Amino acid sequence: MTLNVGVIGVGMIGQDHIRRLTHVLSGTRVAAVTDVNLDRAKTVAEDLPGCQLHQSGQELIEDEGVDAVLVCSWGPAHEESVLACIAAGKQVFCEKPLATTEAACNHIIDAEVAAGRRMVTVGFMRRYDAGYLGMKQALSRGDIGAPLIMHSAHRNPSVPPGLTSETIVVDTCVHDIDIARWLLDSEVAATQVLKPRRSSRAAEHLQDPLMLLLEMSSGPLVVIEALVNSGYGYDIRGEIVGETGTVELAESSTIIVKREGQYSGRVPGDWRERFARSYDAELQEWITAASAGTSTGPSSWDGYAATVATDAGVAALNGGGRVEVSLRDQPELYREEAK
Amino acid sequence: MTLNVGVIGVGMIGQDHIRRLTHVLSGTRVAAVTDVNLDRAKTVAEDLPGCQLHQSGQELIEDEGVDAVLVCSWGPAHEESVLACIAAGKQVFCEKPLATTEAACNHIIDAEVAAGRRMVTVGFMRRYDAGYLGMKQALSRGDIGAPLIMHSAHRNPSVPPGLTSETIVVDTCVHDIDIARWLLDSEVAATQVLKPRRSSRAAEHLQDPLMLLLEMSSGPLVVIEALVNSGYGYDIRGEIVGETGTVELAESSTIIVKREGQYSGRVPGDWRERFARSYDAELQEWITAASAGTSTGPSSWDGYAATVATDAGVAALNGGGRVEVSLRDQPELYREEAK
Amino acid sequence: MTLNVGVIGVGMIGQDHIRRLTHVLSGTRVAAVTDVNLDRAKTVAEDLPGCQLHQSGQELIEDEGVDAVLVCSWGPAHEESVLACIAAGKQVFCEKPLATTEAACNHIIDAEVAAGRRMVTVGFMRRYDAGYLGMKQALSRGDIGAPLIMHSAHRNPSVPPGLTSETIVVDTCVHDIDIARWLLDSEVAATQVLKPRRSSRAAEHLQDPLMLLLEMSSGPLVVIEALVNSGYGYDIRGEIVGETGTVELAESSTIIVKREGQYSGRVPGDWRERFARSYDAELQEWITAASAGTSTGPSSWDGYAATVATDAGVAALNGGGRVEVSLRDQPELYREEAK
Amino acid sequence: MTLNVGVIGVGMIGQDHIRRLTHVLSGTRVAAVTDVNLDRAKTVAEDLPGCQLHQSGQELIEDEGVDAVLVCSWGPAHEESVLACIAAGKQVFCEKPLATTEAACNHIIDAEVAAGRRMVTVGFMRRYDAGYLGMKQALSRGDIGAPLIMHSAHRNPSVPPGLTSETIVVDTCVHDIDIARWLLDSEVAATQVLKPRRSSRAAEHLQDPLMLLLEMSSGPLVVIEALVNSGYGYDIRGEIVGETGTVELAESSTIIVKREGQYSGRVPGDWRERFARSYDAELQEWITAASAGTSTGPSSWDGYAATVATDAGVAALNGGGRVEVSLRDQPELYREEAK
Repeated sequence: MTLNVGVIGVGMIGQDHIRRLTHVLSGTRVAAVTDVNLDRAKTVAEDLPGCQLHQSGQELIEDEGVDAVLVCSWGPAHEESVLACIAAGKQVFCEKPLATTEAACNHIIDAEVAAGRRMVTVGFMRRYDAGYLGMKQALSRGDIGAPLIMHSAHRNPSVPPGLTSETIVVDTCVHDIDIARWLLDSEVAATQVLKPRRSSRAAEHLQDPLMLLLEMSSGPLVVIEALVNSGYGYDIRGEIVGETGTVELAESSTIIVKREGQYSGRVPGDWRERFARSYDAELQEWITAASAGTSTGPSSWDGYAATVATDAGVAALNGGGRVEVSLRDQPELYREEAK
Repeated sequence: MTLNVGVIGVGMIGQDHIRRLTHVLSGTRVAAVTDVNLDRAKTVAEDLPGCQLHQSGQELIEDEGVDAVLVCSWGPAHEESVLACIAAGKQVFCEKPLATTEAACNHIIDAEVAAGRRMVTVGFMRRYDAGYLGMKQALSRGDIGAPLIMHSAHRNPSVPPGLTSETIVVDTCVHDIDIARWLLDSEVAATQVLKPRRSSRAAEHLQDPLMLLLEMSSGPLVVIEALVNSGYGYDIRGEIVGETGTVELAESSTIIVKREGQYSGRVPGDWRERFARSYDAELQEWITAASAGTSTGPSSWDGYAATVATDAGVAALNGGGRVEVSLRDQPELYREEAK
Repeated sequence: MTLNVGVIGVGMIGQDHIRRLTHVLSGTRVAAVTDVNLDRAKTVAEDLPGCQLHQSGQELIEDEGVDAVLVCSWGPAHEESVLACIAAGKQVFCEKPLATTEAACNHIIDAEVAAGRRMVTVGFMRRYDAGYLGMKQALSRGDIGAPLIMHSAHRNPSVPPGLTSETIVVDTCVHDIDIARWLLDSEVAATQVLKPRRSSRAAEHLQDPLMLLLEMSSGPLVVIEALVNSGYGYDIRGEIVGETGTVELAESSTIIVKREGQYSGRVPGDWRERFARSYDAELQEWITAASAGTSTGPSSWDGYAATVATDAGVAALNGGGRVEVSLRDQPELYREEAK
Repeated sequence: MTLNVGVIGVGMIGQDHIRRLTHVLSGTRVAAVTDVNLDRAKTVAEDLPGCQLHQSGQELIEDEGVDAVLVCSWGPAHEESVLACIAAGKQVFCEKPLATTEAACNHIIDAEVAAGRRMVTVGFMRRYDAGYLGMKQALSRGDIGAPLIMHSAHRNPSVPPGLTSETIVVDTCVHDIDIARWLLDSEVAATQVLKPRRSSRAAEHLQDPLMLLLEMSSGPLVVIEALVNSGYGYDIRGEIVGETGTVELAESSTIIVKREGQYSGRVPGDWRERFARSYDAELQEWITAASAGTSTGPSSWDGYAATVATDAGVAALNGGGRVEVSLRDQPELYREEAK
């Protein structure tokens, strides 16, 4: 049984997922594509045997040859596509963010709850990384006792000049926020932003690095360092300090070279290198679940909670001080066991 | 386009490859199976939609619904299946060893050379491991200069009681031999066996650990330590010492835990854990090549050279002293660029 | 030439320094001791050939057989001893803190400035640790560009039950404060305290862990995690994030053991194990300098700046919010090159 | 009490030890020096307050102001000095080798046994290295079970052009031989030499690298890789494989730097950097013992056994094949507990 997937949005991440569905993963094919840039969609479709080109997301979602939908358009367009998938009763994998406003996230949650079953998976791929999975297991085994503090560092080698400080919170830190929520099994209760000395490598208007602090509802403090012009590589670090020990991500280099007075390992060059396996695993798991008509992994609730937390982070960035986070009651639908 | 694969031999490794073809890899399905134990083959076939059950390897190979063949039977049966695939003009992936005798390997090479094109890939999965690939790249980049010495340690946690010392050379060290040939781009010229103090964890008759020394035709010396009752885990280590530096495999743990006065990482529990990704990658590459009617990766020549080298290793084990290795002239067919 | 040292205070750290002066270091001997507990001082003196027992610090300082003085009494007594040494024109090594109040530190600075030469060295031993020295050199070489953020973690295995949260700032974090000032070559401009979930291993009244944030006058942010009931060991971590790279302390274990599915290194058991060499080096350097009538290493200014910063930290701990730090003008005497 | 040490031989290592005795260690001073190059000895003596200059080793040993003697002359001169010290009843620390021939070593053992007490310590400083001490403790604790194999790599960055292949065995591998004897608590029973491809960085006549294999009397096999033109640094590696686990030397860098896509630690530049602390510790321990009129650490027996083993290694290098080692009966005097 092959899952016929329709892809809405064929930019960089969309094309990477199409490659994955076509050449890497099992039990699926790309059956249809669309994009706001129809020429780009047409070019992509021509390379895929038997792939339909659609004029709009709505048309693609209604296509009977499409079993499930992958949403890779830009953030503000996510709400409309995800709601249409829910209305059509089709499983949808939505790249993060689920939606760009709390209101839009609420609409999605309301629609899914009304439908009575999970149909939405959000693309927080870190939950499929072997390192974070190992940290989760160490916590579950009780290796380090109850968690007290989490240190998270998110370092990109560089960013396009147009990026804003708000985007660092919304697009960069959102991954740290989701993985903290998942590892600590707790919601964000309040946020605060600290502004260290700016890097001379960053654009004039950019607060790079910045520190985002999260107080979790169960008590632990999460200290997120975001540095998007690190210069030296894509370096993702994480450590949880518990009552009896700590667990941290190991370096990911597979070899050590010794030369010229040093031993050295590789720091990944970008997120694709660092999280290639995580993207494979999250989509394979979604394909398997969607083929069975079910959902797993990060839910609409996770997408909602992340958006509310980044909203608070942006408020803390702009206003200063401590900004509390308030979440709606969690619908029964999402009270399943954490993955 | 889906590659319809027939699987000969559905024991442990065969079933693991069937899982891989069915649930992990892209562009393939299991179309037919057979086994010397037909009941076992029947049970496996029943779980696979549209899978044919065949009475013999020959019958499976002749099945028009089979595009390519995976040979996972026991070693002595490989020759017959591989020759039949060549005769049928079908691509074949043969688990190591290619064949258990030099004569059998020669028959396969002769048949493939007569056919005028590569049709055989041998399952030396280490060549697809990120660590060994990194070592190969470091060598190619000239990071460490010309290679002088290779240290290789192959440690299994334990082995079944029936295993013999010859098997340690033939089934265990063969992986170290192949990866040394590949990394150093050179053939084995002579072998020698050293016998350290026996582990009390090993069966009475077993020389465990043993050291296998390889003199490579281009000069480097390879020191292989095989310890098949290490007790502590499945630990594969490798280092190449070059004229200006060294390159070695890094530890593979993805997390570090600190507790009770120690920081610790995980040693893999078995070969499946350590090389899971390598098995996926070697078969995916074979599927892609076989779908295009071509072969890549370890060839019949590699299978032949490994068998001749392990024969010499067994002679050194039993007779003592230094045993020279003599290879036939390499047919033009195999003089392609190393992967 | 042997430096005759008088030791005021022969408690745990005092006796450790006496052992060092007597059996480890070159060019010195313990010539005299005293203690508020005279019986204890007597016992110590009896084990040291030719060592005088004095009734008071003042008497010891005035002893013509004493060339230089080591102050290891409790903090509130430091001011009197250090001022007496300055008055007597004798070099003095004072364990941290220099003094427990800003006013007392000011008296010492005023006296030393009036004397016109440095006579006081403060026991911030981290500046002599090979790891921190390496970080300082990496910064000086420009390996990582201008510093932006420093992460410092200070984890003790456990503490006596009577310890207060204020003491965590004053006695524990003071080391992180001094090393940050030294590495970043900058003063503390403001502090803030964050209170993560309390460890159930800590006494009821104790805020353990706590996070102390330092804004440095040159811009970098220092994030100090203090956890004094870590359970697992004495773990000191430090990382500086710069504009083009980072530098961090490596693990200090000298061996790696593999057993039972893990590879493991040792986490130090206490500060003596971790910083044994640093204590040796700081005192040897002081002995050499004092023998020449000069001072090196952490000065009265460093002691003063640390006390003012910990005062601000305690205010932040108790009052909450951000507390600014204001320092007097730095006398010319202390504007030498940083070690 | 100060130990007055006389130093015979003030070349590179002699001057380094004089610096150590004068400025680093406790309880000692250099009371007298001599050298075959008297001008050099005179220059050295002039820098040391109260230091006597002697015309010969014999004269220095007879000096009543000399309590104990440090022999740092070239190897062939050791026998005469050490025998004279034994005759004079003075403790002597002799740099390795104890003597350059088995006969000379026997003379020393005979003299010491006749004297009825240990008076000789040999400068195998590795036994004082924190890493090797940790390996010894791990073995003693039973962390890894009975030892089966030891891997030792000895890599120098480069050597003077005149060095011969024999010297690699005698001066380089001797350290690996001694540390293997000490860690494994066993004597060398046989040796073999393997000759990998020669490094183009080595002089024409030099077998660099070479592998020296040791069969220990208790069964373990020791594989020593000597590479004296490694190019990249001074890299000492060691691993012991036991029945239930392994123990190995950790990297010694105290910091990790991340920049330009890599994380890196430092490889030591030379033996002084790598073993600075070991030299300090071995001499301090000797000073303490000699002040009490006793000896500890590597004995004449260890010096003898190392010379016999390197003799066998040279025979194996020149003649090829396996060379057995035969030791005299061990006198009672040396059957003390290993350090």
